[in-house]
Amino acid sequence: MKLTVLGSGSAMPTPERYHSAQLLEMRNKQFLIDCGEGTQNRMIEFGVRANRLNHIFISHLHGDHCFGLMGLISTLGMLGRTADIEIHAQPDLEALLRPQIDYFCGEFPFQVKFHPFSPYQSAVIYEDRSVTVTTIPLKHRAPSVGFLFEEKAMERHLVRSMVESYDIPLRLLKGIKNGDDYVTPDGELVPNERLTTPPTPPRRFAYCSDTAYSEKIVELIRGVDCLYHETTFLSEDMVRAKQTLHSTAAQAAQIAQAAEVGKLIIGHYSARYRQITPFLEEAKAIFPNTVGATDGAHFDI
Amino acid sequence: MKLTVLGSGSAMPTPERYHSAQLLEMRNKQFLIDCGEGTQNRMIEFGVRANRLNHIFISHLHGDHCFGLMGLISTLGMLGRTADIEIHAQPDLEALLRPQIDYFCGEFPFQVKFHPFSPYQSAVIYEDRSVTVTTIPLKHRAPSVGFLFEEKAMERHLVRSMVESYDIPLRLLKGIKNGDDYVTPDGELVPNERLTTPPTPPRRFAYCSDTAYSEKIVELIRGVDCLYHETTFLSEDMVRAKQTLHSTAAQAAQIAQAAEVGKLIIGHYSARYRQITPFLEEAKAIFPNTVGATDGAHFDI
Repeated sequence: MKLTVLGSGSAMPTPERYHSAQLLEMRNKQFLIDCGEGTQNRMIEFGVRANRLNHIFISHLHGDHCFGLMGLISTLGMLGRTADIEIHAQPDLEALLRPQIDYFCGEFPFQVKFHPFSPYQSAVIYEDRSVTVTTIPLKHRAPSVGFLFEEKAMERHLVRSMVESYDIPLRLLKGIKNGDDYVTPDGELVPNERLTTPPTPPRRFAYCSDTAYSEKIVELIRGVDCLYHETTFLSEDMVRAKQTLHSTAAQAAQIAQAAEVGKLIIGHYSARYRQITPFLEEAKAIFPNTVGATDGAHFDI
Repeated sequence: MKLTVLGSGSAMPTPERYHSAQLLEMRNKQFLIDCGEGTQNRMIEFGVRANRLNHIFISHLHGDHCFGLMGLISTLGMLGRTADIEIHAQPDLEALLRPQIDYFCGEFPFQVKFHPFSPYQSAVIYEDRSVTVTTIPLKHRAPSVGFLFEEKAMERHLVRSMVESYDIPLRLLKGIKNGDDYVTPDGELVPNERLTTPPTPPRRFAYCSDTAYSEKIVELIRGVDCLYHETTFLSEDMVRAKQTLHSTAAQAAQIAQAAEVGKLIIGHYSARYRQITPFLEEAKAIFPNTVGATDGAHFDI
């Protein structure tokens, strides 16, 4: 699992920080999370090819999280794409974008499909053979959700030397990877734990932006390998954080601590701050395994 | 008159070239010409403050010329702006943007006003005390216009020594700047040409993008101080230029030569070319006073 930050800024962009967008790569697929203005420019700048991108998830309908969609869709169209683009978002987005898609992208050989979800309760909104995506209701001025990306349980790993010494037929290997024991032609039972080692644990990544401090999310993200949580403000600007329903670095770290996550990535910094070091200091004092998102940063999960 | 190029690319952006946008400053006003995605990011990156920007002109309704509008309007709203924003564009643009403006910018203390124009005949679409803007119908896949920005005739310059030696009353100076003679209390007639020197000649800038080679525009732009003309392709890709109704560098230079302009700025280069030197070589062979637009470049007109 690999995360590329395309934009780490908040409502007001800066020369270093574009609007929110992150590309998550897992199980040979790409998922785009939010798509602020300039997302396609950042992709090009950072050498990100979006040829395995089919699903886009929009957390909420503020411009800094969705104004890059039309440009991205148009550019994908010019690149000769034929696969549909599927956008998971609150229902209003389709009403807002459909007229522009029809006008500007009417001749494209693919469809843009919208999959609306409710921002008010957690639900699985995407599922395929190897991945599920679940919404995390957040607390913001506009209805807003986070997204929990989870790998599905993987198969056990075959112990090649055992498989070969027992000369196990190919047709049985799928079952053994899923826990079957093996019975030899002589009737000997070989228990599964001798033939396999445990599967790689499924990894989980949670994206939580934009949101005020909300303990309600803790159970939904408990134990994730990596949490991205917004930190628009420092604690010294707590008043402003409360007014705008955003989080401070300390609050993000408290959530990470309470949810016992593996790693915390912070971002969505207000343009009033030029440096992110104070954010890291504030968060690390509470949750040491914190790293800061910057435009173009890669994180292995 | 000063022109800042915010985006010099064409439909497909590159790491160096964003989509079309130029900021023209004249007579203490700012005019934005086209507004591709990332225009606000480029403004911030290049340190351009848009606090005197009230009028935006959109040449045609392809995404690379207008997808930055929503982001720019939103950011201007967050900067505490109160003055209305006036957008001059073909009628469809308001229908496409109004729902988004109402949704995302509904609480702003200013209005976004649209001034539709027809792309099929040249007309004055903007006029104030010191500036006029006239459309230049172009030849493109979508109806497209260029814009001719003209300073109005300025007042003659007073010869301070003469004004002082005749002790001319303040209330008469306005008339003298506009050509009046002066009659002294003794009845002596002092002709205007002794009291003034000729006005600074009004300057004119023409923006022509996107367009195929079109001799029809020559009379509309004859003698302008500066012409921006698109050069999406080199002559070696003439077939592609004809298919897409764009111009080659040689064609832009032929237009500049036929129209006897002062200077030619070329831009809107296709992403297939990494270097702009071949464009300059091709154009300069026909029209030597050619310069190349690059993102962030300033030109004094």
